[in-house]
Amino acid sequence: MSNTNKLKIFNDPIYGFITIPNPLIYDLIQHPYFQRLRRISQMGMSYLVYPGANHTRFHHALGCLHIMQKAVGVLRFKNVQISEAEENALYIAILLHDIGHGPFSHAMEHSIVEDVHHEEISLLFMTKLNKEFDGKLDLAIQIFKGEYHRKFMLQLISSQLDMDRMDYLKRDSFYSGVEEGKINSDRLIQMMNVVDDVLVIEEKGIYSVEKFLMARRLMYWQVYLHKTSLVAELILTKTLKRAKELYQKGVAIECSKPLYFFVENKISFADFNDDVLNEFAKLDDTDIIGAIKNWQYHEDFTLSTLSKIIINRDLLKIKMGEDKFSSEEIQDLIEQFSSENNVSLQEAKYFVFKGKIKNQAYSKVAEPIRILQKDGSLEDVAILSDQLSLKALSKQVTKYFLCYPKQLLKS
Amino acid sequence: MSNTNKLKIFNDPIYGFITIPNPLIYDLIQHPYFQRLRRISQMGMSYLVYPGANHTRFHHALGCLHIMQKAVGVLRFKNVQISEAEENALYIAILLHDIGHGPFSHAMEHSIVEDVHHEEISLLFMTKLNKEFDGKLDLAIQIFKGEYHRKFMLQLISSQLDMDRMDYLKRDSFYSGVEEGKINSDRLIQMMNVVDDVLVIEEKGIYSVEKFLMARRLMYWQVYLHKTSLVAELILTKTLKRAKELYQKGVAIECSKPLYFFVENKISFADFNDDVLNEFAKLDDTDIIGAIKNWQYHEDFTLSTLSKIIINRDLLKIKMGEDKFSSEEIQDLIEQFSSENNVSLQEAKYFVFKGKIKNQAYSKVAEPIRILQKDGSLEDVAILSDQLSLKALSKQVTKYFLCYPKQLLKS
Amino acid sequence: MSNTNKLKIFNDPIYGFITIPNPLIYDLIQHPYFQRLRRISQMGMSYLVYPGANHTRFHHALGCLHIMQKAVGVLRFKNVQISEAEENALYIAILLHDIGHGPFSHAMEHSIVEDVHHEEISLLFMTKLNKEFDGKLDLAIQIFKGEYHRKFMLQLISSQLDMDRMDYLKRDSFYSGVEEGKINSDRLIQMMNVVDDVLVIEEKGIYSVEKFLMARRLMYWQVYLHKTSLVAELILTKTLKRAKELYQKGVAIECSKPLYFFVENKISFADFNDDVLNEFAKLDDTDIIGAIKNWQYHEDFTLSTLSKIIINRDLLKIKMGEDKFSSEEIQDLIEQFSSENNVSLQEAKYFVFKGKIKNQAYSKVAEPIRILQKDGSLEDVAILSDQLSLKALSKQVTKYFLCYPKQLLKS
Amino acid sequence: MSNTNKLKIFNDPIYGFITIPNPLIYDLIQHPYFQRLRRISQMGMSYLVYPGANHTRFHHALGCLHIMQKAVGVLRFKNVQISEAEENALYIAILLHDIGHGPFSHAMEHSIVEDVHHEEISLLFMTKLNKEFDGKLDLAIQIFKGEYHRKFMLQLISSQLDMDRMDYLKRDSFYSGVEEGKINSDRLIQMMNVVDDVLVIEEKGIYSVEKFLMARRLMYWQVYLHKTSLVAELILTKTLKRAKELYQKGVAIECSKPLYFFVENKISFADFNDDVLNEFAKLDDTDIIGAIKNWQYHEDFTLSTLSKIIINRDLLKIKMGEDKFSSEEIQDLIEQFSSENNVSLQEAKYFVFKGKIKNQAYSKVAEPIRILQKDGSLEDVAILSDQLSLKALSKQVTKYFLCYPKQLLKS
Repeated sequence: MSNTNKLKIFNDPIYGFITIPNPLIYDLIQHPYFQRLRRISQMGMSYLVYPGANHTRFHHALGCLHIMQKAVGVLRFKNVQISEAEENALYIAILLHDIGHGPFSHAMEHSIVEDVHHEEISLLFMTKLNKEFDGKLDLAIQIFKGEYHRKFMLQLISSQLDMDRMDYLKRDSFYSGVEEGKINSDRLIQMMNVVDDVLVIEEKGIYSVEKFLMARRLMYWQVYLHKTSLVAELILTKTLKRAKELYQKGVAIECSKPLYFFVENKISFADFNDDVLNEFAKLDDTDIIGAIKNWQYHEDFTLSTLSKIIINRDLLKIKMGEDKFSSEEIQDLIEQFSSENNVSLQEAKYFVFKGKIKNQAYSKVAEPIRILQKDGSLEDVAILSDQLSLKALSKQVTKYFLCYPKQLLKS
Repeated sequence: MSNTNKLKIFNDPIYGFITIPNPLIYDLIQHPYFQRLRRISQMGMSYLVYPGANHTRFHHALGCLHIMQKAVGVLRFKNVQISEAEENALYIAILLHDIGHGPFSHAMEHSIVEDVHHEEISLLFMTKLNKEFDGKLDLAIQIFKGEYHRKFMLQLISSQLDMDRMDYLKRDSFYSGVEEGKINSDRLIQMMNVVDDVLVIEEKGIYSVEKFLMARRLMYWQVYLHKTSLVAELILTKTLKRAKELYQKGVAIECSKPLYFFVENKISFADFNDDVLNEFAKLDDTDIIGAIKNWQYHEDFTLSTLSKIIINRDLLKIKMGEDKFSSEEIQDLIEQFSSENNVSLQEAKYFVFKGKIKNQAYSKVAEPIRILQKDGSLEDVAILSDQLSLKALSKQVTKYFLCYPKQLLKS
Repeated sequence: MSNTNKLKIFNDPIYGFITIPNPLIYDLIQHPYFQRLRRISQMGMSYLVYPGANHTRFHHALGCLHIMQKAVGVLRFKNVQISEAEENALYIAILLHDIGHGPFSHAMEHSIVEDVHHEEISLLFMTKLNKEFDGKLDLAIQIFKGEYHRKFMLQLISSQLDMDRMDYLKRDSFYSGVEEGKINSDRLIQMMNVVDDVLVIEEKGIYSVEKFLMARRLMYWQVYLHKTSLVAELILTKTLKRAKELYQKGVAIECSKPLYFFVENKISFADFNDDVLNEFAKLDDTDIIGAIKNWQYHEDFTLSTLSKIIINRDLLKIKMGEDKFSSEEIQDLIEQFSSENNVSLQEAKYFVFKGKIKNQAYSKVAEPIRILQKDGSLEDVAILSDQLSLKALSKQVTKYFLCYPKQLLKS
Repeated sequence: MSNTNKLKIFNDPIYGFITIPNPLIYDLIQHPYFQRLRRISQMGMSYLVYPGANHTRFHHALGCLHIMQKAVGVLRFKNVQISEAEENALYIAILLHDIGHGPFSHAMEHSIVEDVHHEEISLLFMTKLNKEFDGKLDLAIQIFKGEYHRKFMLQLISSQLDMDRMDYLKRDSFYSGVEEGKINSDRLIQMMNVVDDVLVIEEKGIYSVEKFLMARRLMYWQVYLHKTSLVAELILTKTLKRAKELYQKGVAIECSKPLYFFVENKISFADFNDDVLNEFAKLDDTDIIGAIKNWQYHEDFTLSTLSKIIINRDLLKIKMGEDKFSSEEIQDLIEQFSSENNVSLQEAKYFVFKGKIKNQAYSKVAEPIRILQKDGSLEDVAILSDQLSLKALSKQVTKYFLCYPKQLLKS
């Protein structure tokens, strides 16, 4: 294919059109590692709550690429020097920043693989692609690893106000139909500048930053940690755990070959050699959902029941609150379930369990979002805000939950 | 015209279609008092900053009518009893709640008329229309005055989360193109309920309420009190004041007859008899802008200069800050302007002046926005919010400003 | 679950909120047959061209339910009598009208199952559900089969301007980001009426009907029959065919059990007893995509190559035109492919093939879209249109295509 | 003001942000001639039908500037050479293409001024500004007059698919809330190219062109020539005519000075010297509406009645049809009105009158929209279209109308 044919355009309901800036980017998008992201949902089980939330990590990565192009344009307009090589490295780094995600990452990481974080896998993929592409990803990798001397470039890719967060907030609220999460990425980008190698927001953009942080907080509690999404993800985790447990006990487990590889082997990050990475690259949502559909008919009560619960969206109940649930309360429920269903207490714990979730919209420990004041000085947005709201946003909120079958507690 | 022809539909870029629910509402809309709102801009001088902000009080009133219909539907679905008469009264009251607005109300109220507030004039208009319509507005007026026994109905019309605020935030952000002000009125209305005659928001709507208050705060600081809109309005006020002052000194002032009536007479609320109301009903934006266009050529330096400043959008500079500006600084500028332009110190004060503005997004003194918790109890949203942000929103913020011509300070 | 808990709301980025009108509808949505639609993409392989097009048949069915509620409201407002039982039957019928769709229906119907159309399967599902729900679907089924005496009700569900087409045009253009396909369903519904038991559009809606038909035509050629979507679907069809062929030759084929059932058995519509229907109800996109992922590693060159082509989106080339491609041209390509890849001519035909597609935006043979003129008479929109455009839209357009691997023709 | 402060941004609800590309453009926008466009409505009396249609010629001109920047970007990306001087000239020419519009141009041109077309006045303004700006508008004027050797540049400014039409269709449909008029300007611009100095649309954009022409046709019949807008404009024309007639008979007419100038003098294009241009530059919507408000109280029955009709939106009835109305029918109505209101037949003709309007969505006489086919050849879109719809669009449609007071015909 000639290079001019690689200057392609993707339709995007959010930005209108996304332009591929050069043939190398095109080739990276065409690579099977990247195409695989077409089959990985961005929001995991959330489609069970928000039926529109079927968008993929593929589309999110393209969206990030798009707004990075905007950001480069704005910064250059403001006389921030960005060479063509740097520009391209920024595009590559943002395009690939999430390539290490597997299907239902969170559930996977808490069940089948151990101590594996998608950022690390992203780096492994980048390194592998760098070999295939004769070192053309060198600079992108340097930036991604934080080793490049111009620190603001990393901030565009990974910080509290990066292209990743901007696109996912916009995209997730768009597809889920949750208006409250919509942010004005156009304006935020227009307000960006670089001062002393630090990415800053000009003072008149402070309300947009506040709005961005509020939207982020709202999306966490209303969408990402929506109790139904949460319970669905927890059940998925339990299901995968049960499958692995059964396998380890010698019970036959059917699933696709790439998933079987991870059920069969105990894989943590240290084990990710080329072979493991290649198996990982074969995994996507169809492996997980396909397996669970099949497990509905497995002879193990726990595995089949959990699987049916997911496939038919006949989920466990979940209670959430600000206080811990008492051990007694849970123990009672476990015993009740155990006796009603004639399963061991151990198995009952797959259906009755508690836990906690935390979130903070803005971290004071992480690098701050810096506001460029009119006098030229920089200040953390949380300090500058003319009221307490942003300081409040940096408070970590913890919620406790308890999951159990609907049938219980009725009696 | 037959009554069936009065079941009209208005196009609205925000809601799609606005339906006129019955012939009485149609006749009220057709009344010259109401048609006049087509010629009164909702956002005053803001179009000088946001070129799209040319929407009218007419359209806003229709928008309020539309979402009131939604609210009645949702409340009835939740088994809140609302009779047909009450329903209709709600529509009338919300339709006419702003009918007392004159052109550029704020500027008018600080220059030409005295102690006149648009809510009071709205009531005068309603009373007058009630006579024309044989008492059909009785119940609407009772609700509007807070005299009806079902208090939640007033809350739908005038409270910290009423149809008025919902529509104007949505509409103003839509037309100005300020994405950050957009609120999800659909969801807020879906979350409404009535408990013990109090309008409440169900608990799962708490984030939407927070978002609504944040949006309101943002719209105040970024749009309504935008420094350029503010300075334009202040200059308009000064211009009208100057005209009145000149008239009182015996200088001839040309303008439309209805405006002349208010320049000529000293009118405060107590003077609003039927004749005054009728003159007031003739005023709209064209009277003010038409006069100022004309005054550009007046022989008085102050009046003509101020008028040109507005018409050519060649505005004064404005500095805003959190501290008061010193009297010395201002006095210096006044003297400098006086000497450079060969005008009296008194006249110079039309071009160099200071002041302050205040805003609070949520008032703790006013009736609170109440959240209906899952256990059935009600709580103020500011208390319930799991963080400090809403408490912070109720803090009153004051900003100080100083206005002066561009040419000054350069030297 | 109590019935009040079944009055649920779904978020929808298109309509805002979709309300479930009654507990029976809720229970139908909860049924596994319907939940399965969450895993069936509305637009098949189109996501390979439009990365946002991942919405499901589940969401489309909910969208249809929503606009049917609007339509019932508008018709009642215009004094069309619709009883509560009829209303409910309309909701059930539109909700379930597409429940018979399998994954990638078109490709399935041309490869694995024979003479099976989704409408017929929808009816089988409805009949089955009717038993489970004690006859509560009787009236819906009557309407769906065209057996109810009030014919306009069927027109709301299935005609050239039904709720189905309105929602899918709106939804498909929304998710694919193809602005040109957007239609104003709100206005079309507002313009609906019923005259002599015929669904009509009032005269002033004629431009909206024209726009609707233009949008439909555009969506066909630009989106549904986009050459890349088309080639992807054709390759999918070939892949499934090859799998079945291999099975019939005794070669082992791995795939999920429900898919295996259809590979193994020769199923046409006549065979759809309860057991077959139950197997069919287990099928969704994951079965197809999962199988193809697996078949990438099959020993058969044809099956594995076709599978890789899909998974890595490394598609065949496609040429489209208004004239047939010559048999010689194709024969040459087949021979070239055969010799270059050392496969039989028979196998080469899986990679080099031709065909044709047809579309007409408006059918004159089918029941027309009728316009209610001001004098009360009805007329076909195609006759009434003040120009020829609609007559033109009823012309059937045929295009011919030729598919072949990129590598060919280069030499 | 320093030049960097002139790199301003305008909010636009349609495009998000509109960037001012350089200080000269900024200075032109700041000029009183251009600021005046803030007070001239883009859609004349249409706000009486579409209450959101209050947007201005100022905003439209900025919108054109914005999409011209997009077009220049796309063409350069496709290797069309455009120098910086040419780029800037394109921006100036599109910014000022409509600067010659007066208030309610159409009504003015058919009543008070004679043989004056806004394009010609635009050129007068440009020439005047060119002097003020030391010849910096030379190239823009050359392009605007069609004298520049690169003809495609004029096509960007004035042709059947220019930036003007794209913005006004998009903007007018946006503000009026008429979804059907929305066009995909982004895609149309993406499909632009220049071949042999001709602006072309690449073949795959053909459906977007069709959609654009359909939208244009729809906007004409549904919005611009909506019968209520039409009747309002006709009454406005009659009102202005009556005022001029009365003046000529020696009756005193009150209005603003600039309007008086045109009532007093018989001005046709040949009279537009600098003084006339300066008076013209003082006119805006407030002069017209202000006068009509005042004329409501004029002693002349005809003038005051027409004025009230407009201000209170109590419009004449209008019948439209495809056949001419008979002279007898009209004569009867005129006589009836004359006798009922005790006015002369001559005066009655201000209230009872007929006429015709024509429109064609696409002209075959004007320069065609050319499609760049895959083989490199160019073809008129109307010829290329695979159906007749576009050929049909070029048919001129004529409609006849008859206006008369509501009270008539009732008896």
